[in-house]
Amino acid sequence: MTRLLREEKVFKDPVHKYIYVQDETIWNLINTKEFQRLRRIRQLGTSFMTFHGAEHSRFSHSLGVYEVARRIISQFERNGYADWPSEERLLCLCAALLHDIGHGPFSHSVERVFGTHHEEWTCRLVLGDTEVNRVLREADPDLPRKVSDVICKSYDKEIVVSLISSQLDADRMDYLLRDAYFTGVHYGTFDLERILRVIRPHQGHMVVKESGMHAIEDYLMSRYQMYWQVYFHPVTRSSEIVLRKIFERAKRLYGDRYPFQFLMGPLVGLLENDIGIDDYLALDESYVQMTIMQWSKERDPILSDLCERFLHRRLFKYVALDVIDEAWERELKESFAAVGIDPDYYLEIDFLTDLPYDVYRPGDEEESLPIWLLNERDELVEISRRSDIIRSISGIHMGKHHVYFPAEPIEEKAGLLSPGVRRMLGVTGESNE
Amino acid sequence: MTRLLREEKVFKDPVHKYIYVQDETIWNLINTKEFQRLRRIRQLGTSFMTFHGAEHSRFSHSLGVYEVARRIISQFERNGYADWPSEERLLCLCAALLHDIGHGPFSHSVERVFGTHHEEWTCRLVLGDTEVNRVLREADPDLPRKVSDVICKSYDKEIVVSLISSQLDADRMDYLLRDAYFTGVHYGTFDLERILRVIRPHQGHMVVKESGMHAIEDYLMSRYQMYWQVYFHPVTRSSEIVLRKIFERAKRLYGDRYPFQFLMGPLVGLLENDIGIDDYLALDESYVQMTIMQWSKERDPILSDLCERFLHRRLFKYVALDVIDEAWERELKESFAAVGIDPDYYLEIDFLTDLPYDVYRPGDEEESLPIWLLNERDELVEISRRSDIIRSISGIHMGKHHVYFPAEPIEEKAGLLSPGVRRMLGVTGESNE
Amino acid sequence: MTRLLREEKVFKDPVHKYIYVQDETIWNLINTKEFQRLRRIRQLGTSFMTFHGAEHSRFSHSLGVYEVARRIISQFERNGYADWPSEERLLCLCAALLHDIGHGPFSHSVERVFGTHHEEWTCRLVLGDTEVNRVLREADPDLPRKVSDVICKSYDKEIVVSLISSQLDADRMDYLLRDAYFTGVHYGTFDLERILRVIRPHQGHMVVKESGMHAIEDYLMSRYQMYWQVYFHPVTRSSEIVLRKIFERAKRLYGDRYPFQFLMGPLVGLLENDIGIDDYLALDESYVQMTIMQWSKERDPILSDLCERFLHRRLFKYVALDVIDEAWERELKESFAAVGIDPDYYLEIDFLTDLPYDVYRPGDEEESLPIWLLNERDELVEISRRSDIIRSISGIHMGKHHVYFPAEPIEEKAGLLSPGVRRMLGVTGESNE
Amino acid sequence: MTRLLREEKVFKDPVHKYIYVQDETIWNLINTKEFQRLRRIRQLGTSFMTFHGAEHSRFSHSLGVYEVARRIISQFERNGYADWPSEERLLCLCAALLHDIGHGPFSHSVERVFGTHHEEWTCRLVLGDTEVNRVLREADPDLPRKVSDVICKSYDKEIVVSLISSQLDADRMDYLLRDAYFTGVHYGTFDLERILRVIRPHQGHMVVKESGMHAIEDYLMSRYQMYWQVYFHPVTRSSEIVLRKIFERAKRLYGDRYPFQFLMGPLVGLLENDIGIDDYLALDESYVQMTIMQWSKERDPILSDLCERFLHRRLFKYVALDVIDEAWERELKESFAAVGIDPDYYLEIDFLTDLPYDVYRPGDEEESLPIWLLNERDELVEISRRSDIIRSISGIHMGKHHVYFPAEPIEEKAGLLSPGVRRMLGVTGESNE
Repeated sequence: MTRLLREEKVFKDPVHKYIYVQDETIWNLINTKEFQRLRRIRQLGTSFMTFHGAEHSRFSHSLGVYEVARRIISQFERNGYADWPSEERLLCLCAALLHDIGHGPFSHSVERVFGTHHEEWTCRLVLGDTEVNRVLREADPDLPRKVSDVICKSYDKEIVVSLISSQLDADRMDYLLRDAYFTGVHYGTFDLERILRVIRPHQGHMVVKESGMHAIEDYLMSRYQMYWQVYFHPVTRSSEIVLRKIFERAKRLYGDRYPFQFLMGPLVGLLENDIGIDDYLALDESYVQMTIMQWSKERDPILSDLCERFLHRRLFKYVALDVIDEAWERELKESFAAVGIDPDYYLEIDFLTDLPYDVYRPGDEEESLPIWLLNERDELVEISRRSDIIRSISGIHMGKHHVYFPAEPIEEKAGLLSPGVRRMLGVTGESNE
Repeated sequence: MTRLLREEKVFKDPVHKYIYVQDETIWNLINTKEFQRLRRIRQLGTSFMTFHGAEHSRFSHSLGVYEVARRIISQFERNGYADWPSEERLLCLCAALLHDIGHGPFSHSVERVFGTHHEEWTCRLVLGDTEVNRVLREADPDLPRKVSDVICKSYDKEIVVSLISSQLDADRMDYLLRDAYFTGVHYGTFDLERILRVIRPHQGHMVVKESGMHAIEDYLMSRYQMYWQVYFHPVTRSSEIVLRKIFERAKRLYGDRYPFQFLMGPLVGLLENDIGIDDYLALDESYVQMTIMQWSKERDPILSDLCERFLHRRLFKYVALDVIDEAWERELKESFAAVGIDPDYYLEIDFLTDLPYDVYRPGDEEESLPIWLLNERDELVEISRRSDIIRSISGIHMGKHHVYFPAEPIEEKAGLLSPGVRRMLGVTGESNE
Repeated sequence: MTRLLREEKVFKDPVHKYIYVQDETIWNLINTKEFQRLRRIRQLGTSFMTFHGAEHSRFSHSLGVYEVARRIISQFERNGYADWPSEERLLCLCAALLHDIGHGPFSHSVERVFGTHHEEWTCRLVLGDTEVNRVLREADPDLPRKVSDVICKSYDKEIVVSLISSQLDADRMDYLLRDAYFTGVHYGTFDLERILRVIRPHQGHMVVKESGMHAIEDYLMSRYQMYWQVYFHPVTRSSEIVLRKIFERAKRLYGDRYPFQFLMGPLVGLLENDIGIDDYLALDESYVQMTIMQWSKERDPILSDLCERFLHRRLFKYVALDVIDEAWERELKESFAAVGIDPDYYLEIDFLTDLPYDVYRPGDEEESLPIWLLNERDELVEISRRSDIIRSISGIHMGKHHVYFPAEPIEEKAGLLSPGVRRMLGVTGESNE
Repeated sequence: MTRLLREEKVFKDPVHKYIYVQDETIWNLINTKEFQRLRRIRQLGTSFMTFHGAEHSRFSHSLGVYEVARRIISQFERNGYADWPSEERLLCLCAALLHDIGHGPFSHSVERVFGTHHEEWTCRLVLGDTEVNRVLREADPDLPRKVSDVICKSYDKEIVVSLISSQLDADRMDYLLRDAYFTGVHYGTFDLERILRVIRPHQGHMVVKESGMHAIEDYLMSRYQMYWQVYFHPVTRSSEIVLRKIFERAKRLYGDRYPFQFLMGPLVGLLENDIGIDDYLALDESYVQMTIMQWSKERDPILSDLCERFLHRRLFKYVALDVIDEAWERELKESFAAVGIDPDYYLEIDFLTDLPYDVYRPGDEEESLPIWLLNERDELVEISRRSDIIRSISGIHMGKHHVYFPAEPIEEKAGLLSPGVRRMLGVTGESNE
């Protein structure tokens, strides 16, 4: 079914040294315009405003996930594990490569405002009238459907799904290493070769041999560090909030028939909640970035101010609070409104539990497939039952609440605020980094 | 003159681990909108199409140059070298930070077509009505002029200029390490701490103590490797050529009053050869990228085809030739024209000597300041007189000529071409990576 | 008090890149014969039999501890922390450099059999008639006593002691990084520069600013990984046990007036429990290694067999057991004796809690100084009260019991053992690595 | 012929991450006492006195050479190169593993004084009555002879010999990387994976495809840097000279029937020029080190002084001279003798061309197999014909002469020396590092 290339192709990759492509289907998928488009979408959204190295794209991550999956499978094949369904190799590789193909620009913020879902779009692109779909069908008419099933986790072989999305999948293994590399946060790394040596297929599951428990602890600690040091960084949150406020303001203005000086095709689709494949594909980060540049000159003062903030990195300040109750929240909003600062766009109270937090937590409803240890008596044990460390990070509490707001107008109007609000916001201080 | 920050600030940097900011002026410069704009301009232009990791911006490079300069100066101060003019510290740091601020998007291609010069723009931004200018003036009214002089190499203290632009300057030290890191081409690295230990100020020059000669050899070999493996990579050249052809076509169409469906402010300035500071600042890579996306739908078949090629990475194929003479070149052009393929946009013969090649070559007219060894008798010797290796890479010949052209239309029309042209282009083969 | 060298000296170091020496006293201490002797004593004893890279000496570790201390102090000085007693700089550096100078060959095994203590010997060497003592006295007549006090933790300034021995001291920071580097176990690394940025002196204590908590978690997790992957590795334990049995046998034979064919000076002192400084200094690992080589030809079959095992790495096999009670232990010993295998020399039951386990455990009687967090209200909080992860590794249980015994003679005599003993030892299997 | 292990074994290796063993023969060879003995012989002799990290043994290097060979072969097999004689796999692996097994302690110095040759001893151990020989014969009765032929370069298939000893062999690839890692001299590294990608078997030769030329340049530059920075370091030379003088003195004393207080078996064999396999195997670095420790107390003042110097690293000082002629050399010797310092033991003039210098030099009589480029027309070209850089380092001149002598006695007697000698030796200065 799968044809091999005449000669192996390689991509130089800073994380995995080389990425090896042997299958014609994989090579052709990489060369589709839908896949090439991922070069124009950053892997970490607005994180580059906090960690200036984090400018890498979903293109390089997608190649990385493919490569990790390829290495896992190649290790399974080399060891001749009986429980590995070797006929699923190409499917796994395609799903690994394509799992993020539906991502749009700055997904977190866009999805929250406009209600799009990148998983859905991934399936639309795999199943729809696209170059990706044509390449998959050439290899096997059923391949688009299967790839879509794996990515949506409805494929009937758990081990195939595990490789692409579980607590210990190729996706996470690549993004932790890659994000650590590009941010420069090297404590986010773990030993990939060591992990490869301890995982194996077992009766339909992906399992870890018991002696590999410490390797998994190390991997989960890397995730934990990356979450707290990088993914939840308050400056990154601040930039996401400003971006979200921009979209919220634009949506409101559009609803109010505000006469935008700049507004082009794909974005109208998003605002109308009716967007086709071609427009979605045109909607990359250059598009969003340039729109924000144009909107920084719109007459609406809120929209243009928010856009300027995003462009020139004049983000919201934050203060951390141990607790905040509804009364306080109400008082804050009213104070802001009272001094003429619209709390809908200039105030945000952020609870980290709102986030897509995936530090390993078995028992959660939304949980991914857990990590199984295979002990010496060939029994499966969920890993947090054996590891105190993993148990301790599974139930970990979520840190503090953060209040985000723009430093300058609030500082200027500090005299008009109640002493309690001033104290809470620390408004006599300087703005932070 | 310079005020220190209450508390040192740091940026996490993958190349230098941390970038340390102690001066208020530096901190304020980083926060100007002109400097933040460098986040939207890639350090290596279109190289990301060859090395997918090379997505880093001039923002991170500029911070890196600043940091290298800071470390050099701090080592000079720690060792108490008498020949170091310590009053020039802040000037050096500002010039290091700002030396690339005038870069536009995809500079190599844009500058060749539209005749802009990034050094000129750097000076305009430093001296003009900008935030950067205001921050510099706050520290010292003469600072803008001095910074501009250092960057234009007209400042009267050679050692200050050397730090920012010479064969062994902070700029190159950062970009070699940074480009190696982000491309993943680790043979481009050298030992920065070792270089810092062997350089020192001496009677107005930057010199290397003789025992450090092997360290410099290692550094120059890294440059050599980076030039041949990364900067001159034929796939990168191909993407630059396609981009240049896009601009050339647009310029021609604009001259012919072609009715563009999409054409916005800043680009008009460029096409009119009359662009102001505000428009120049708006001209970032998002802007160019999005314009290309829009132009891929223009009716002009050449413009839309070239834009599609750039967007989806369907670049020109290349063949390497030992020599090519004018007769051959003419025949190629005529053959292309004869089969209906416009050689102005679909054929390029590339000589690497056309490039801004800066492998160390004392004696060249355009040469930068050379590297001086200080021997045990306190005499200065130009380094290539002592090192066979450096002499051998200084006079190195330039490799091959490459012919670039689009694979598909040429393959289709192969039958119509003369056997000589077919053989030269190898047109019966497959397209390469 | 301290004189600076005319020119800074450096040592190339694989872990810290360079080790910088600025003080004449430090330079002279390094050149004493007592310090040079540390080149002949491995940092990790017999671990090189498990991790072949772990051949590094206490000499390089001692330089490393000095360098970490130097960097900590230099960061304190650069930041001008008021609570740092700057007059203690040289004392700290000397104590850091010399803290391990009393270590003998294969300390763990030797100390258990012969009752020596390396801390005691460190003080004897610092205070006695040695080159080290002379160099210290030259700088300050009180320096030997002070250095000895710091190393014995009786010096009256806690912050000075903290730097050299606490849960977060220069000693541990170096050995974790160094042992990780030389074994190749890179998951044992942590970000030293990040730690340096978050520690500071505060009212006589060394503290960590609260925002640095995750950095400490990362450091303690590295320790945890190193303990379980390297320091407690059962193959290393096996080699230590064989070595200890050699010494125990020799001690018994010496007590029984066995006529050794090879027995030289320093070792007699050890066996007589009366050893002077000169003999102690002669007792390096070459001495022990060569003695074992000679003893492998002694007539006593137990001594020669154990020495052959050590020399040619024919170590004891091990089996892990969840629990083992006294009855079982007795049965094992009797079974061994019954088949003619002396359980005193060929059987060892190892509980990891017997070990000098220093994973961070506040509350233990033997605990080192704990790690204090300094919160935003300037209060000190013991770190495990704030970090679930640290709490979870502080109380961690100790793993399994291991039974060590020689595979071959036991396998040969398997038929003579009871089925219970056979099953417990798994003696029908192959020997493990 | 070769049996596979039930389960792959691995060694953690800092240079190659993991070393993989799949063949029973390889596993058994590693466990022989002759191979385990390599743990007691350092890879870089006395270099640890210059680079304190260079304490690694020939054991780890030998495993590394095996691993590099295994990766090369595995790449050949994966690509299915027709010109690779796949039946030679086990032979290559055994030869790679065993190629250094005959090395004694501090080979360079010992061999020069006592006339032993490690290659000869390797063959004696492979062919003689040893455990290694038995393991090889078990796999194939002809294997010992074949392994010995490969190591002596008399095996009739050039490609097999190339893998083990040529200008681009597994031996050099490992030692350059390993010595760079352990010394910390990271500019000695090159990209092994890149080299693996460009070499291949071709008509009985090992060749490099033309596009890989820059990779080879990078590798040869690493060698060049390692030679000048590490292997030829004057402090290392000084320690080798002191060691050689010790052996020369002992040999003279033995010839003169001096009554040694300490002199044991294996060394007598060496002094008598008649040593058997068992004694040779006993002659490890512990043995030599301990002998030197004992000899530091001998009554002969020259022997004891030299031994003290070696033990406590009080090496000879050196001065570099551009040229030195015979007249000068004679005057130096006579001056030394005149002030009572025996020039036979306290003076050495070192020309680096005396050394086993193997920077790539085609045309030399002693040259190893050259490196062949395979061009696009399938022709072989010797690489220095294509690369200016390689040509330039092939003919490189050898640096300076160094005069070595002990600083103290010469300084003391400076007044008795002629002004010319004083000036030449710079004897009023301080001793260097």
